[in-house]
Amino acid sequence: MRYINFEGEPTISPDDFFMNEALNEAKQALAEDEIPIGAIVVCKGKIIGRGHNLTERLNDVSAHAEMQALTAAANYMGGKYLQDCTLYVTLEPCVMCAGASYWFQVARIVFGAYDQRMGFGRLNQKITHPKTEITGGIRENECAELVRNFFKSKRKS
Amino acid sequence: MRYINFEGEPTISPDDFFMNEALNEAKQALAEDEIPIGAIVVCKGKIIGRGHNLTERLNDVSAHAEMQALTAAANYMGGKYLQDCTLYVTLEPCVMCAGASYWFQVARIVFGAYDQRMGFGRLNQKITHPKTEITGGIRENECAELVRNFFKSKRKS
Repeated sequence: MRYINFEGEPTISPDDFFMNEALNEAKQALAEDEIPIGAIVVCKGKIIGRGHNLTERLNDVSAHAEMQALTAAANYMGGKYLQDCTLYVTLEPCVMCAGASYWFQVARIVFGAYDQRMGFGRLNQKITHPKTEITGGIRENECAELVRNFFKSKRKS
Repeated sequence: MRYINFEGEPTISPDDFFMNEALNEAKQALAEDEIPIGAIVVCKGKIIGRGHNLTERLNDVSAHAEMQALTAAANYMGGKYLQDCTLYVTLEPCVMCAGASYWFQVARIVFGAYDQRMGFGRLNQKITHPKTEITGGIRENECAELVRNFFKSKRKS
């Protein structure tokens, strides 16, 4: 699906649009010298949760962008589940975050860059909720480059 | 390994002893009408983190006992990793919690009851840290019975 734009501007798909918002969260992490990963949760076209990696600030290796965005969204909804919601995240979720998405019964996960080492997609069994649809590779290069450049700059310093 | 007790009292293994502490946390959850699952983190014989299931109170389906105990322990340590620590939990951890234990680099996971439906052990690939040792079935019956009775009473009411 693509939105029609009558102003002659480039059209953008909803997934591209929302991944851009997740990228903004990742850039916020970068500004705080965190690994630049960002996530948002969208329900019926509305952003109801945001988060970025906070492992350094919280000194908590489990404070991933997805965990922040999912709990923020669930809090906003005042309910337990996120059955009508899409999680957008700039990097393929790890096993912990994919496992969390199971409990929240997220309808859809859209991620940017693939993470072959730590991403949940390396598992040969499904660990997300049976109803969760997965889309990977949205704005993949921008998402990957943010993380790549971050680690490159860390190695130099 | 069993501690020697010179008083003629029944001896108790360290794993039994600490699982009893996790069971006390589970009973605390029960008193709060939460699914009775408890966890503690032990470092060199000292309990440095405690937690029990808080999914109802926090209205957060990811607020598992293990997540509470792990973050409490990491907070206490003031460091990121729990490489010398053992996580004791009354129920076999789910994929999310096992995934979290990876990031914390927990040395050992000891659990009570097996959870064939949601436990991470159902996966045919290792998702815990390569250095993490796993022991299951410690005080299995007591741990299982707590959860079983909880759901039985819920179905009646």
